[in-house]
Amino acid sequence: MDNQQKANGFSRRDFLKNTVTAGAGTLLVNPMNLFSQDVNTNNQHIMGKNIKSKGYAAKDNSGKLSPWEFERRPVGEHDVLIDIKFASICHSDIHQMKGDWGPQQYPQVPGHEIVGIVAAVGSKVTKFKVGDRAGVGCMVDSCMECDSCKHGEEHYCENGKTVFTYGYPMKDSPTGISQGGYSNNIVVRDHFAVHIPEHISFEQAAPLLCAGITTYSPLMNANFKIGDKVGVAGIGGLGHLAVKLAVSKGAEVYAFTTSPSKVNDIKSFGVKEVIVVDNPSKLAPFKGQLDYMISTIPVQFDVASYASVVKPNGFFTQVGMPVGFQLTLSNIGLAGSRVNFNASLIGGIPETQEVIHYCADNGIYPVIEVIKANQINDAWDKVLNNEARYRYVIDASTF
Amino acid sequence: MDNQQKANGFSRRDFLKNTVTAGAGTLLVNPMNLFSQDVNTNNQHIMGKNIKSKGYAAKDNSGKLSPWEFERRPVGEHDVLIDIKFASICHSDIHQMKGDWGPQQYPQVPGHEIVGIVAAVGSKVTKFKVGDRAGVGCMVDSCMECDSCKHGEEHYCENGKTVFTYGYPMKDSPTGISQGGYSNNIVVRDHFAVHIPEHISFEQAAPLLCAGITTYSPLMNANFKIGDKVGVAGIGGLGHLAVKLAVSKGAEVYAFTTSPSKVNDIKSFGVKEVIVVDNPSKLAPFKGQLDYMISTIPVQFDVASYASVVKPNGFFTQVGMPVGFQLTLSNIGLAGSRVNFNASLIGGIPETQEVIHYCADNGIYPVIEVIKANQINDAWDKVLNNEARYRYVIDASTF
Repeated sequence: MDNQQKANGFSRRDFLKNTVTAGAGTLLVNPMNLFSQDVNTNNQHIMGKNIKSKGYAAKDNSGKLSPWEFERRPVGEHDVLIDIKFASICHSDIHQMKGDWGPQQYPQVPGHEIVGIVAAVGSKVTKFKVGDRAGVGCMVDSCMECDSCKHGEEHYCENGKTVFTYGYPMKDSPTGISQGGYSNNIVVRDHFAVHIPEHISFEQAAPLLCAGITTYSPLMNANFKIGDKVGVAGIGGLGHLAVKLAVSKGAEVYAFTTSPSKVNDIKSFGVKEVIVVDNPSKLAPFKGQLDYMISTIPVQFDVASYASVVKPNGFFTQVGMPVGFQLTLSNIGLAGSRVNFNASLIGGIPETQEVIHYCADNGIYPVIEVIKANQINDAWDKVLNNEARYRYVIDASTF
Repeated sequence: MDNQQKANGFSRRDFLKNTVTAGAGTLLVNPMNLFSQDVNTNNQHIMGKNIKSKGYAAKDNSGKLSPWEFERRPVGEHDVLIDIKFASICHSDIHQMKGDWGPQQYPQVPGHEIVGIVAAVGSKVTKFKVGDRAGVGCMVDSCMECDSCKHGEEHYCENGKTVFTYGYPMKDSPTGISQGGYSNNIVVRDHFAVHIPEHISFEQAAPLLCAGITTYSPLMNANFKIGDKVGVAGIGGLGHLAVKLAVSKGAEVYAFTTSPSKVNDIKSFGVKEVIVVDNPSKLAPFKGQLDYMISTIPVQFDVASYASVVKPNGFFTQVGMPVGFQLTLSNIGLAGSRVNFNASLIGGIPETQEVIHYCADNGIYPVIEVIKANQINDAWDKVLNNEARYRYVIDASTF
């Protein structure tokens, strides 16, 4: 920890971490207020200067990360600086760092499930004050002027100005690209940070920033009724949250997994049935039975066979993004099922805030395992081997 | 023409052909009635015996056809024997004969756009009488007992018993498989033949049996309103009928073609605009503009870019079936457009009858070129080279 970081108030990390780890989030408000004057004072020292940051970065497409120190842009008048407490691991991080979705600029810091505490705010920021609990998901900027941006669909910016959290060209970034959350801090335009309520821990909130919103948005869009049969295919980081969200919203949930070892866990999430799809024939008994299905499978799979479990004219949403984003499907198989196939990206900022409130208010928590930074590479291997149960959350104090 | 065929009444072909070719379909009723006693008498001679047939068959997967004589099953009590007058060429014929959709049994006679005159009827047939004008499309049998079969969706037979018109296992066929319409006659269960009204010529009716119903069914299912913007991608045999049907039903039609030479033709069909997609960038100005889109493109193409011209939450239907039925799409591209992708097969028998009546009543005619049997191979090459304008119709008297 260098002097600049100490000056930025990072020396309070231990106190904050302890209160948070104890789940005593409600204790946090008053103590932080005590510090607010102090932090505002510190603000004076950091404004206008690049922010020093350290984290874990991919240096090439090997799929391995290593420690890296870098700089972020100065805190602008609409920006907040967030002292990151936890960042969780999404399969997308691995895909992108390996170049599965196209060539990348390295070093690149992945991570788009980010939570922490606001350490500084720009002069025009009203959404946050120093000390607030905040989260950042898959995007950090957009034009904010088009209809989509003005109506909570910043990820569909009509001017193509959505900046995703890592690896996207970003003029004012010292590295030329956005750098993600596997690091100890982040500078982000205030609109793109969301509030994390006191009654959910940082660790549990982190996965909601991508896995939560990415499944919540299409589930809500599907507009299923209480008692409707909803299928979830692929029960990993996203899928297990999709299951919990759908169960919570009143669906009769059918979970399709290729991992027999996950069956008991999944049952505990309140599903009606778990189907171990060790062979596509296991899908046949469900042909035309479900009202809706979401797939989080992030690799090529037999789309038409999975979709066939949905009733004719129903909808099947693919949120997992395979290598090259390319998915091959049997057009005649899809015709045979008469199911509508669609894909969903993430969700807008207002809906991201919504899912966080919903989960906090209703006790929908991801199943997580907290790891240290030096365990990231091992965790990535486990994600690729379907061994994650169900989301690895990195303790940012270990960067 | 052998004696058996003469005995079956085929010697009347010249008379019938002449009346039909003249477009004087309405002249046909009375003359046929004059013959009905004669035909019924002939019926006695053919019942219980295999029906001799000749046509053009694929002998291997070379994509070339040659003359072939074969036998069809006897006319059963629920069957009709149709003396084929015309059969038209569908891209599917080529795909299947070449084995693009899986290994085939040869010799195999393609053709599922078939029209002619009923030459014999089984004892329990009430739907047709000898002399009726009749057509056969993509299927010739199904279980007829399941909900789908009983409700006009025989192509979705829940017992998997749909028998498509050629190349499908058929126990009572002397060749073991169904044999299609590039031939001088066909035996088919009465339910699977449709009536061809007097006020449309046989040549013009033929393409409706597949190209017509395959585009009509999803267009009707799309339920667009008058004035809605409907896109049609791929303006060949299917596409040009999709254009004419959508225009006729009140849509503002946008036609997307890769053939600049088709532009004037397509304009004459009444479209709002023709877009020559020599580069996917030509689709960009239409992003999110259309209410619905149907693609008849029978090869791999950039699905997500085409789908992106549809409004968010709209529908894009793929009816063209590429090699292996496999279509690769960009999942992130589809997510970006928020368009629902679905596929459609053909249509049921009642809807097939409906489109034939609709086209006959409203003067929706395919653009055709009548060819002789010995021009089939040349015509197939032209279909593959996008040179068909727009449907080749084989004169069955030349087999």
